[in-house]
Amino acid sequence: MSLRVGFIGYGFMGQAHANALARLPMFFPEAPDTDRHVLCGRNEERVAAAADRFGFTHTTDDWETLVDEVDVLYNLGPNDLHAEPTIAALKQDVHVLCEKPLAASLENAERMVTAARESDAVAACAFNYRYVPALRLAKELIEQGTLGEIRHVRGQYLVDWQADPKHPWVWRNNVERAGYGQVGDVGSHTIDLARWLVGEITDVSGRLATLVDERPAADDESARPVTTDDIYLATASFESGAVGVFEGSSVASGHKATNAIEIIGSEGAVRFDLERLNELEVYDADRRGYERILVTDDEDPYGERWWPAGHTIGWEHTVVHENYEFLRAIADEGDGIVSFDEALTVQRIVDTVVQSDEQGQRLAVETDA
Amino acid sequence: MSLRVGFIGYGFMGQAHANALARLPMFFPEAPDTDRHVLCGRNEERVAAAADRFGFTHTTDDWETLVDEVDVLYNLGPNDLHAEPTIAALKQDVHVLCEKPLAASLENAERMVTAARESDAVAACAFNYRYVPALRLAKELIEQGTLGEIRHVRGQYLVDWQADPKHPWVWRNNVERAGYGQVGDVGSHTIDLARWLVGEITDVSGRLATLVDERPAADDESARPVTTDDIYLATASFESGAVGVFEGSSVASGHKATNAIEIIGSEGAVRFDLERLNELEVYDADRRGYERILVTDDEDPYGERWWPAGHTIGWEHTVVHENYEFLRAIADEGDGIVSFDEALTVQRIVDTVVQSDEQGQRLAVETDA
Amino acid sequence: MSLRVGFIGYGFMGQAHANALARLPMFFPEAPDTDRHVLCGRNEERVAAAADRFGFTHTTDDWETLVDEVDVLYNLGPNDLHAEPTIAALKQDVHVLCEKPLAASLENAERMVTAARESDAVAACAFNYRYVPALRLAKELIEQGTLGEIRHVRGQYLVDWQADPKHPWVWRNNVERAGYGQVGDVGSHTIDLARWLVGEITDVSGRLATLVDERPAADDESARPVTTDDIYLATASFESGAVGVFEGSSVASGHKATNAIEIIGSEGAVRFDLERLNELEVYDADRRGYERILVTDDEDPYGERWWPAGHTIGWEHTVVHENYEFLRAIADEGDGIVSFDEALTVQRIVDTVVQSDEQGQRLAVETDA
Amino acid sequence: MSLRVGFIGYGFMGQAHANALARLPMFFPEAPDTDRHVLCGRNEERVAAAADRFGFTHTTDDWETLVDEVDVLYNLGPNDLHAEPTIAALKQDVHVLCEKPLAASLENAERMVTAARESDAVAACAFNYRYVPALRLAKELIEQGTLGEIRHVRGQYLVDWQADPKHPWVWRNNVERAGYGQVGDVGSHTIDLARWLVGEITDVSGRLATLVDERPAADDESARPVTTDDIYLATASFESGAVGVFEGSSVASGHKATNAIEIIGSEGAVRFDLERLNELEVYDADRRGYERILVTDDEDPYGERWWPAGHTIGWEHTVVHENYEFLRAIADEGDGIVSFDEALTVQRIVDTVVQSDEQGQRLAVETDA
Repeated sequence: MSLRVGFIGYGFMGQAHANALARLPMFFPEAPDTDRHVLCGRNEERVAAAADRFGFTHTTDDWETLVDEVDVLYNLGPNDLHAEPTIAALKQDVHVLCEKPLAASLENAERMVTAARESDAVAACAFNYRYVPALRLAKELIEQGTLGEIRHVRGQYLVDWQADPKHPWVWRNNVERAGYGQVGDVGSHTIDLARWLVGEITDVSGRLATLVDERPAADDESARPVTTDDIYLATASFESGAVGVFEGSSVASGHKATNAIEIIGSEGAVRFDLERLNELEVYDADRRGYERILVTDDEDPYGERWWPAGHTIGWEHTVVHENYEFLRAIADEGDGIVSFDEALTVQRIVDTVVQSDEQGQRLAVETDA
Repeated sequence: MSLRVGFIGYGFMGQAHANALARLPMFFPEAPDTDRHVLCGRNEERVAAAADRFGFTHTTDDWETLVDEVDVLYNLGPNDLHAEPTIAALKQDVHVLCEKPLAASLENAERMVTAARESDAVAACAFNYRYVPALRLAKELIEQGTLGEIRHVRGQYLVDWQADPKHPWVWRNNVERAGYGQVGDVGSHTIDLARWLVGEITDVSGRLATLVDERPAADDESARPVTTDDIYLATASFESGAVGVFEGSSVASGHKATNAIEIIGSEGAVRFDLERLNELEVYDADRRGYERILVTDDEDPYGERWWPAGHTIGWEHTVVHENYEFLRAIADEGDGIVSFDEALTVQRIVDTVVQSDEQGQRLAVETDA
Repeated sequence: MSLRVGFIGYGFMGQAHANALARLPMFFPEAPDTDRHVLCGRNEERVAAAADRFGFTHTTDDWETLVDEVDVLYNLGPNDLHAEPTIAALKQDVHVLCEKPLAASLENAERMVTAARESDAVAACAFNYRYVPALRLAKELIEQGTLGEIRHVRGQYLVDWQADPKHPWVWRNNVERAGYGQVGDVGSHTIDLARWLVGEITDVSGRLATLVDERPAADDESARPVTTDDIYLATASFESGAVGVFEGSSVASGHKATNAIEIIGSEGAVRFDLERLNELEVYDADRRGYERILVTDDEDPYGERWWPAGHTIGWEHTVVHENYEFLRAIADEGDGIVSFDEALTVQRIVDTVVQSDEQGQRLAVETDA
Repeated sequence: MSLRVGFIGYGFMGQAHANALARLPMFFPEAPDTDRHVLCGRNEERVAAAADRFGFTHTTDDWETLVDEVDVLYNLGPNDLHAEPTIAALKQDVHVLCEKPLAASLENAERMVTAARESDAVAACAFNYRYVPALRLAKELIEQGTLGEIRHVRGQYLVDWQADPKHPWVWRNNVERAGYGQVGDVGSHTIDLARWLVGEITDVSGRLATLVDERPAADDESARPVTTDDIYLATASFESGAVGVFEGSSVASGHKATNAIEIIGSEGAVRFDLERLNELEVYDADRRGYERILVTDDEDPYGERWWPAGHTIGWEHTVVHENYEFLRAIADEGDGIVSFDEALTVQRIVDTVVQSDEQGQRLAVETDA
């Protein structure tokens, strides 16, 4: 029996997840079967076209209907639409994969976690970069102690899609829709990776800036205010004693997708850049410099699923792996998902960065009592 | 009505093409529909498993049966099995996509071309690197004259899969099965790219070497002789006056997939390496150094088919693009295939490199009268 | 008439400056002549050997004697020995080139500035990375507006000389001798470059860590406490509205000399790494990616002084350029030095980073009333 | 007692060697003392200016006078002026350091070798890239067997100084003055490095091209014919069984100083590029990828002579090292020079490449009976 799946959202991420589901049978045949059942969106014509292309059986413009019909909800809408459908689904024990960041506000994120804890369903947040083979190899190296004691974490996510001040205003520029600017959009990825790889973050100092403070509306020439940050910077301490620096920008001229992290320990170091996602650079204190590894061998994470060594994969494969781990979790296998609890921790750190910036103070990251 | 497709071969390339066909509807919806109908191979059990995984309706161990049943043949077997099924298919006006090099001997390659010329079907050879977006962008730049007059072509294809002398003997080490060593296996790719980008090659000087001259059999410890080259080197002249150097190796320690080409002209230059297939480096004589471009914009070749700028694709996408262009050709659209005539020209150059090595002389590449 | 020069310090920096003075006549013949007159240090035998090698006429172990004898003082001793000889020299109108950071305490730095203001002599601080041709080219590009409005400054100085916890304790690990840890040692370089390239820094948030908190004494096995930071991190705002992040470490496994800076503006960007000091990467919003430039052309800063294009220079050339600009300033030419006023501003920022860390607060950088 | 030194030639190489001699006392104090005695050139005024700048006592326009006056001759003139002064000097037991290639013709090279063999003086050829620390480290690794059995040698020397067809004609474009084009100018460097690192070359296949066949005269607009190659390509076999490819060009748009070599063996590999002369990339079959090493440690070749680890050197340091080894040889120490015998072997290979191109045949490299 196939799991009936419904998506809210049919844009870029809708296609990425539809593609992932379509590819699983050939490459991860043991993954639970899925049926792309219903696609939800407001614009009837465009939803219908997307459903046709993405392989969905039918469409709806009402997420409540969708939730009633499915075993699994993919919540791929804007951040401010994450909470209600997700909570409704979890109440009905419908599994949920929710895009990141978990919510547009800490309060809603907490409500979602409560719903997840009370539900029998699986609730996962889509921090897809955990599924990059090179980063999973980095995690293996760290867990094996190859890097020694971690000292210095350097995470950046620099992109240029809004580098041009004439780039139109989008919902992400509106703090009410997005909740956060770059600190939430790209910063949540960096913070998730840093926590996952190095451990808990105890306090942060944040600095936000909005360097392009208005942008033209997409449909006319009126200027609309940008109410989110377009650059965030933060320093952090980890429970282990390591320190870190995080940077994110959507106005970083010259950077297409510099989602990079370097982790420096007492015995070694690793570094990664999403623009070269098949590569990991590894330094071992017994050697003299960073070694560049192509992470495509059969022995590498997910390596034997794909092509022979040297045949690279692309960005979309991270989403395929993510879907595989999510569906396995539904089948009670593996522990490969990012739980809502973890996503809430990320969001608390994001939120603390914002508050730290507002208060001009280093702030401890709150944890559950 | 879907085109019924049959594959000979169910290994790496079988999966790559099956995956390509499976992905076309979502990303290239205007491509002709296909039905993965029949998969041919000798080992009944393994063929059945592959057919199930790759989405084929049924299997056979007889290629003649297969040819009778299909509209399209994918000939993905060893080089010495290219000729007969392909010729049989073309005689029945069954379209053929044949893996490279075209054949294990020049004589068979010529027979295949004759069959293609006499057939109403489309006959294409699978030089998939023509479908790398970065290389298509390189071709656009060259055709627009951005590089000026081409002077120097530098092509390498260096891999290490047999770098270890203990790596088992395979059919590619047998000149009777493979026809050629690295000059055919990777050299044909380099030569195809060079011709496609720069134009006709008029003469070559070749040098072949077999540095590991025996290898253990896969199933026991007996040594089997290597009768193909494991490194080839060649210099060449192009009709345009440019000169070039080509190198290929399967014993290149440290290289996973260095399928690289640099083209230097009077006004600019480009360079590419398959290990970083989303990138093209471009030099323009008005500037001071090579500029690194991520070829993932909507305006880039096949760019709007996939993900937003900065979201990279992988090796397999070259095969998707190749299948798209092949199916379009069947529908009488586009001119995106590598014809058997072109593949024969590549094979003549490959063959001339071998003869040049044997004779210790620079040799002109023969062309049709 | 030659300028009589005296050095306090005969280690690495002593040799670097002696070499610089020795090389000026051949490459910068218009620079004022100098006479390496007297070398000061405590260990009579080692000073004598160094004087012989570095070309000094005689030696002393008394800096007051030295100051009396010379026209120019090079103060190359530990940070806590910068103030007194420098002030004494300036009172006698002896020109001073003082190593960085200006002093081991803000108070002494201020005293040195007062002495400089009251003296007729030239007082310069040895921030030698301003004299890297690639960074001077970066400054030209910024001043010409090529980068547009600066948004994001990313400075790191990561080295590994104390990465091994068994590396012996040195005076730099003692806050009383050094005044500061990495924030002063390498951070002052980064902050100087950032200010010089982008303009005034208005506030900072600092974070310091001492990850290796004791080290073996050089001469026995006793453990000595490390009382300075070995990693510092800071975020900053610039007067112009740009924001920045600075990082420095002496325990950065895998980094030999990553003195790197990236400056991202609305219209372009540049980046530099001292490990490849002949190179500048330049992004221009009219292009698609960073362009790698070898900054060795005749037209480049100091380019025609050295070798033909493509023939690289090394680290020591930065010190030669620095000496040239210093001696020119003595001859009332050019404005190529880093004044004590500027060095004090750097030190105030360094000091504010430390205080910000201690207070857990973002702090404004004080300026003169 | 100092060695009296005379230079023929006062251009780029004159300055490089004068600088080297001037720097030896501080960094290589045990090297024999030298006295820059006499500088020879035709243009009286320019020679006088150069002598003043380079520290020579007096000048001459007559090389025979010079030879009579000195203990050591540096022959830095055009290739066709190498033979006579060198032979005259050696007959008088004057030591000679001669620029590369040894001569403009094989016949003259052989005469020079005869003179060297009959002389008591040291005769060395200035292949300065043997003195790059990274390449000496490469040689150590090869000699220690770290790379295993060498398989594939890839040498390029690609520069762009004549990439523009409007770049003026120079003596190097005249086969009568230069003897050879790029195969002699840059090819001799590549071939020297390949032999030095990998061993004897037994046969070659050459291909030469002159892509810009006339150039404007420097002083007027008349076109002068280019009678040397501007690109050479060659493949080669080594005595050891390795094969290699060599490429050189002076019209390689986008390349400032790509003097690069990669050596691939059964157990490892190294690669180097002069544009990053402080770096060596090393691959070890026990690892997964190339490791980038900064060759500036005390333990590295010439490492303790210069600055602390991480402080890079430049191109000119190769000439300093070369002078050190030359002067040591005069003092009967070390074996660090390139003998005329070795330089003749290089020239024979260069010459065989040219003949191979003319004959369209692979040719054995002749050796002494």
